[in-house]
Amino acid sequence: MNKKNVNLGIIGLGQIGSRLYKEVILKRKDIEVKTGKKINIIAISAKSIKKKRNFSFNRKIFFKNPLNISNNPKVDIIFELIGLPGGISKKIVETALKNKKHVITANKALIAKNGDYLSKLAEANKVNLEFEAAVGGGIPVLRTIKDGLITNKINKVVGILNGTCNYILTKMGSSKESFSNVLKKAQLLGYAEPRNPKFDLNGADTLAKVRILSALAFNKKISSNQCLMDGIENIELKDIEMADRLNFRIKLLGITELINNKLFERVHPCLIRKDKYIANINGAMNAVILNGKPVGQSVLQGEGAGPGPTSSALMSDLLSVLRGNIKYPFGLPHIKRKSIRNYDINLYSNSLYLRFEVNDRPGVLSSITKIFTKNKISIKNLIQNPNKLNNKASIVIITHANSEKNFKKLFVGLSKNKYVIKKPIFIRIEKN
Amino acid sequence: MNKKNVNLGIIGLGQIGSRLYKEVILKRKDIEVKTGKKINIIAISAKSIKKKRNFSFNRKIFFKNPLNISNNPKVDIIFELIGLPGGISKKIVETALKNKKHVITANKALIAKNGDYLSKLAEANKVNLEFEAAVGGGIPVLRTIKDGLITNKINKVVGILNGTCNYILTKMGSSKESFSNVLKKAQLLGYAEPRNPKFDLNGADTLAKVRILSALAFNKKISSNQCLMDGIENIELKDIEMADRLNFRIKLLGITELINNKLFERVHPCLIRKDKYIANINGAMNAVILNGKPVGQSVLQGEGAGPGPTSSALMSDLLSVLRGNIKYPFGLPHIKRKSIRNYDINLYSNSLYLRFEVNDRPGVLSSITKIFTKNKISIKNLIQNPNKLNNKASIVIITHANSEKNFKKLFVGLSKNKYVIKKPIFIRIEKN
Repeated sequence: MNKKNVNLGIIGLGQIGSRLYKEVILKRKDIEVKTGKKINIIAISAKSIKKKRNFSFNRKIFFKNPLNISNNPKVDIIFELIGLPGGISKKIVETALKNKKHVITANKALIAKNGDYLSKLAEANKVNLEFEAAVGGGIPVLRTIKDGLITNKINKVVGILNGTCNYILTKMGSSKESFSNVLKKAQLLGYAEPRNPKFDLNGADTLAKVRILSALAFNKKISSNQCLMDGIENIELKDIEMADRLNFRIKLLGITELINNKLFERVHPCLIRKDKYIANINGAMNAVILNGKPVGQSVLQGEGAGPGPTSSALMSDLLSVLRGNIKYPFGLPHIKRKSIRNYDINLYSNSLYLRFEVNDRPGVLSSITKIFTKNKISIKNLIQNPNKLNNKASIVIITHANSEKNFKKLFVGLSKNKYVIKKPIFIRIEKN
Repeated sequence: MNKKNVNLGIIGLGQIGSRLYKEVILKRKDIEVKTGKKINIIAISAKSIKKKRNFSFNRKIFFKNPLNISNNPKVDIIFELIGLPGGISKKIVETALKNKKHVITANKALIAKNGDYLSKLAEANKVNLEFEAAVGGGIPVLRTIKDGLITNKINKVVGILNGTCNYILTKMGSSKESFSNVLKKAQLLGYAEPRNPKFDLNGADTLAKVRILSALAFNKKISSNQCLMDGIENIELKDIEMADRLNFRIKLLGITELINNKLFERVHPCLIRKDKYIANINGAMNAVILNGKPVGQSVLQGEGAGPGPTSSALMSDLLSVLRGNIKYPFGLPHIKRKSIRNYDINLYSNSLYLRFEVNDRPGVLSSITKIFTKNKISIKNLIQNPNKLNNKASIVIITHANSEKNFKKLFVGLSKNKYVIKKPIFIRIEKN
């Protein structure tokens, strides 16, 4: 960036946008020392000008229509902090890039869905599109892949990428409360969306982050393949307690890896042995493990969400733009990023934790274990917890490793079994 | 960097230099895709041209005198991989910078001692001086501070920064072998210098890294203050076993923090509770914990030494230079980096683990505990292990928190005590 005075526009003034506004003003001098640039916020936009905010602003810089900021010739850099996967968020970013404005966003849904198109647009217009805040909150994981580990051949990335889910799973374990009670607490504390926490809980948020990580780590296009995505909504306190008894913890992991040059992306709850690093990432923390050559294993850990960490990431993007560190949004030119074929999930083999509720009548165990034998799945552990009061029982089974394909058949068999009351719960066991 | 073809010189062809040479050749195409630059190694230098190496090179590019590379007008970027704190290493870097060549080095001793002078020189000549590989091996910690966390106000950095010491302490605990036996193994495995491991073991290597981290994290000049530095040479297997019994692990930590705007840098072995993150960094791994506002706590972990991780860091510096990124070696202009006053270590208060060998005669305990009372140091735990065979005993004491000043007086008192046979061992207890 050649000019000395740089003008910013901030679109979206929720928790993140408000904090960013204050950070920019607070750090103005520091930014000038580090980059030689004087920055000014000359445009802001939000749903309502009247909403009570914990900072004051000149009403002249408020724009009702955010596209008037994207089209404002005086604005050099735009922050898109609305967060929709398309719609007005996409329109704002698209318009800004076409008008040769740099764009910084925290919007993982937008990047996971439209990142290839938008990065091409940014490259064509010779401006930056930065989205460090989209993955891992305050953890500078995208920058680490694009810069710090740039020439490494990365083959696997494993992460706890959703603070809401990690908070809920941790809290269920420590407070012995049900999923729904803990979710309510998380919403009160601001860890979970008060209105619609679905995209956190069902794994969609983590999957969007995984897709961005895959594209960066493996230098490929963003995949849109259907892939394994399970959330944490069906996990009950009894699963967490049983996992604890068996020396495991339950975590929602996002995993992406290359297997024989095919892409295997997945998001699902995992049982992880307590002595593993990732099993000990608690509360709203995030963590990412990268396997690369020649660097070996790298781990990054930090606060995954909230206005503080997110604004830290947004500010790092801002300074990168101000210093003129113009890069390809995904680390290499759009044209060099190829599509990648999907790994056949049916080939994936792992061990499983299964829990199902049964009517505790004579013959139940033999009837159930027969289904395992029929599907060639061998049992490693079986724990039966009878409930004398209602003649029911919980059966927990840990299997030996087997393919997803065989497990699918197993579930069908189990669901049809006359003793089994509810749909069985299953959680994959992760060796990492 | 405006030119399309960029010429490199590599000075020093030990383990690191050799690996780098091969990495550069292996990644040439990838580098061109990511940066648009074609790179060529046009000059190398080492002690001997004849030494057996696991790669072949054109003898025409070998220079006996490395300064001929620093003075060669065709060379654009120089790697200094000799590693001396001054002498020829300094001369190579100095000459190269004056000749407007970018310099990349893994030399922590040089940067810790001459970094301010050299960074001023680099800025004056408008070239980069990069030293990511000097701290934390493959962990991109300097880049994370300079870029990823750039506008954060960092107030504390804690790290396991020396793989040799961490390997030795871990291995003593797992194999129940003595310090000297484990050191020999570490030397055989290449984890410790075969000839002179002193600078690893006495904490000097860690201190150099701490000084570089302080300068970057706090935006200050590199300190040259005398500061607390203890190594691991006096730690015996019985200390590691006793720590284990008390639910601690022993780690050599490097710590730098701002206390009331004064700088407190220290390197010493610490007892850390087993359930703490940093207590679980084992073997040759390194880890760094950064406390910043607004980001909160960030953790980075990875392989701390060896040709693979080090060349990963050197390559990240190379691509940063090729892309034209980062202008100030310490993140902001030399002139803006101020000196900082030192914290008075006598004010520092912590708990201590003490072990001393005594002649096990009547009155020994009362005689020793008196010295504690006299110095107003209260005892939290006392464990006496008598050795019936020789009428001697080990006494281990955990104190409540007290000042370094009072502890110094305590040591004088203990050393003079007639029952105490050897100089007492003490290890600070770290709460982090």
